[in-house]
Amino acid sequence: MMKSIVSSKYLACLVGSIILNLLFIINIYVGGQWKLSWSLGAAIEAETVAAIYCSGHGRAYLDGLVVVGNKPICDCNTCFTGPDCSQFIPHCTANADGFTSNKRSLDPEYLTARTLPSDQLRDPPHLASSALVVAGWHQMSYTYGGKSFFSKELAKVVRKVHASVGNAVTQNRFIIFGAGSTQVLSAAVFALSPENTSSPAKVVTSVPYYPLDKQQTQYFSSQKFKYEGDAYRWKNRSDCSSTNMIEIVTSPNNPDGQLKKAIFHGANVKTIYDHAYYWPHFTPIPAPSDEDVMVFTLSKLTGHAGTRLGWAVIKDETVFNRMMMHMRMNSMGVSKDAQLRAFKLLNAVLEEGTGIFDFAYQTMKSRWERLVQTVSLSNRFSLQENNPQYCTFYNKVRQLSPAYAWLKCEREEDKDCYAVLEAGNIIGRQGNLFGAEDGYVRLSLVRTQDDFDILIERLHKLITEEDGDKTM
Amino acid sequence: MMKSIVSSKYLACLVGSIILNLLFIINIYVGGQWKLSWSLGAAIEAETVAAIYCSGHGRAYLDGLVVVGNKPICDCNTCFTGPDCSQFIPHCTANADGFTSNKRSLDPEYLTARTLPSDQLRDPPHLASSALVVAGWHQMSYTYGGKSFFSKELAKVVRKVHASVGNAVTQNRFIIFGAGSTQVLSAAVFALSPENTSSPAKVVTSVPYYPLDKQQTQYFSSQKFKYEGDAYRWKNRSDCSSTNMIEIVTSPNNPDGQLKKAIFHGANVKTIYDHAYYWPHFTPIPAPSDEDVMVFTLSKLTGHAGTRLGWAVIKDETVFNRMMMHMRMNSMGVSKDAQLRAFKLLNAVLEEGTGIFDFAYQTMKSRWERLVQTVSLSNRFSLQENNPQYCTFYNKVRQLSPAYAWLKCEREEDKDCYAVLEAGNIIGRQGNLFGAEDGYVRLSLVRTQDDFDILIERLHKLITEEDGDKTM
Repeated sequence: MMKSIVSSKYLACLVGSIILNLLFIINIYVGGQWKLSWSLGAAIEAETVAAIYCSGHGRAYLDGLVVVGNKPICDCNTCFTGPDCSQFIPHCTANADGFTSNKRSLDPEYLTARTLPSDQLRDPPHLASSALVVAGWHQMSYTYGGKSFFSKELAKVVRKVHASVGNAVTQNRFIIFGAGSTQVLSAAVFALSPENTSSPAKVVTSVPYYPLDKQQTQYFSSQKFKYEGDAYRWKNRSDCSSTNMIEIVTSPNNPDGQLKKAIFHGANVKTIYDHAYYWPHFTPIPAPSDEDVMVFTLSKLTGHAGTRLGWAVIKDETVFNRMMMHMRMNSMGVSKDAQLRAFKLLNAVLEEGTGIFDFAYQTMKSRWERLVQTVSLSNRFSLQENNPQYCTFYNKVRQLSPAYAWLKCEREEDKDCYAVLEAGNIIGRQGNLFGAEDGYVRLSLVRTQDDFDILIERLHKLITEEDGDKTM
Repeated sequence: MMKSIVSSKYLACLVGSIILNLLFIINIYVGGQWKLSWSLGAAIEAETVAAIYCSGHGRAYLDGLVVVGNKPICDCNTCFTGPDCSQFIPHCTANADGFTSNKRSLDPEYLTARTLPSDQLRDPPHLASSALVVAGWHQMSYTYGGKSFFSKELAKVVRKVHASVGNAVTQNRFIIFGAGSTQVLSAAVFALSPENTSSPAKVVTSVPYYPLDKQQTQYFSSQKFKYEGDAYRWKNRSDCSSTNMIEIVTSPNNPDGQLKKAIFHGANVKTIYDHAYYWPHFTPIPAPSDEDVMVFTLSKLTGHAGTRLGWAVIKDETVFNRMMMHMRMNSMGVSKDAQLRAFKLLNAVLEEGTGIFDFAYQTMKSRWERLVQTVSLSNRFSLQENNPQYCTFYNKVRQLSPAYAWLKCEREEDKDCYAVLEAGNIIGRQGNLFGAEDGYVRLSLVRTQDDFDILIERLHKLITEEDGDKTM
């Protein structure tokens, strides 16, 4: 009897142990094929760093700063500090701009895209589909299969994403990649410039414009092209009918989020459509865009600005070949690690169906609701109109939900709107950088939730103190 | 008795099962901390692709071409084909150049760096240390900690590698990254050009020179700088003593591997040292280089050309700041995925001590021995002299072991050496691309072992047929 009890206990233990083994086997051999070997150490390392606690106000990174020992420290959001980012810095400035240095006017777009789809990619259910494991010997050569700098598989996924969103025609079009839309835009300007000419092509943008277009064109200006300022200034001028013109159209526009159209048309005109923000989280999609040169970027789609991966969809083969030459001369192609990351992330976007766009749109919508509600209490400030349009992606009429607020200071005495906000502890970006008046300031709404919350709080304080100011 | 046997059998099974449990636990919880969660699927996927059999003549990649189903196919080395790259293509051409298209003259350096340290990083003991796991949300913003486009941790590792090799002084120097040395060289030319001037700086290189320096400078030429050809042509000309000159010195040189010195000196001269090949596998290291602007690249150190990660070590802060501005205007920094990969790979290099350099040097040395032996039988061809020098890394006198052979056709009638080799089924690169005569051809020795083996075989055939040719 005793023995029988003992052996049945053994049996129970054995069965338990075997079940445990089976669980381990399932865990290790998922897919029925594989036992981790070379990737295990790196996987443990990555998960260990990912699990470092930063109170929801920061993140630790594999290549993050190491202060003592080997463990990277938390990289805290603005206004948070401490080893685990748990301490709020009471009177800190709301950052609705990006880079805060003395040279701000030269620094575009830093840090703007830390949220949106990215936030969803951080959530556990999406973490797995967006994770990436790279072997030491992965894609070491300059080209794919000795042929091209650019991954054919990545181009396939890009086409699928456009098809699923319906924001661009990609059939019978060429696709080229670059280090963010920044490098792609520059490649397009070089490629569209006349090859042998005595007078450089005039590059124009209509006010308010994206500052980098101006800065970059001026920086690279040569006998091939020259930046010539606001497009409206050249409209209807007879000396333009025979000059080579290149118009860069940012649509939706940065800073004001409006869907913009080209001003110039004709045989001597080339147009580059910067569609960085032409995704359902920022704008209704009235129809798939079908322009000659359309530029997109991962940073405004999934939020991965640091990956530096942009692309152009191009109709004309000669333009495509010239852009290829630019990419070779400039940087011998584009990082294959960036291409692999984009491949993985865009596949994760596709797997989610409309999920990532829904999440991002809801985030932008609710941020706009809070912003509009806050500013509606003010007589001092106003926002751009985000008029509704029909969106083919959502099959309904909906408002724009731009990445930036284009805030106007309405009072006569508030000519320097940037200074007004700065006094209220808010850093935006001056209107004059966009070719507009300084009565305007651009506020970024695509930073971390922490940044947005602090922005609303500071704006609210400014607005509730308005009447007090007036009577003083 | 019976029961006792049964229960002792149970006991044995139980003990075995528990041991198995423990093994699994050790496997999963290596480091005593972690159970893989979000990275497991990606790790299995990566290991599954890595294990696809390509007969040692190719590789399958995570983002490799997919023909049927979901499984990427093998990317075969030159001269091999078939689903597992096992079929040798009998009369195929030995590729000692790179890109083979109609536009070859415009295509520099493709595919050159598929071997060397990289081969070692492929070996099982090194595979783990060079593997990388990336979370979906890893380093999404433009900057690190809101401050810089460039990883401080990567800069630290770069300094450590230079210190351990002794090839460059990095103390009190600035470090900047770019998309390969290609983008870094261009950034340096822009940064060293005078800001406001009526006459552009003259950019020169001495024959034989690296073709891309010429092509790139011509491509971006503007009012700031202009390519002015062979440096020797301008030496001792009085009109140069007051002109701004920028000399690019590739040392060791591409194509001939010689340690090169600047030709121009003086207050109006700026010099860029392209040290891409200044590593112990290609050259003795006589002393740490201590030049104003020194350019390096991952592609010639570990072989990861596709990662597009180069850097410059810079003395002057103004030059550094201007190069930073170039990187912002050109591509808003450099891919963080490329920086993370480089961080991981350079740490693997450091962990190996001299191991990776030893392996690479032995590979280059034995390739040179085979090449010299083959060519020594010939009266028709000759090679550059690789004179010995003292190497501080190996503490001994040793020969150069350059990445390229600079082959000369010695016969009067073989003016077009490229055509002579082409007739022998070997693709090299024409001498005139390097500003030299067409009696020279550059042959790449840093391609795959397959490519090198076929090159030697074809050369051997050409040479053994020499006397027959002569008497014909």
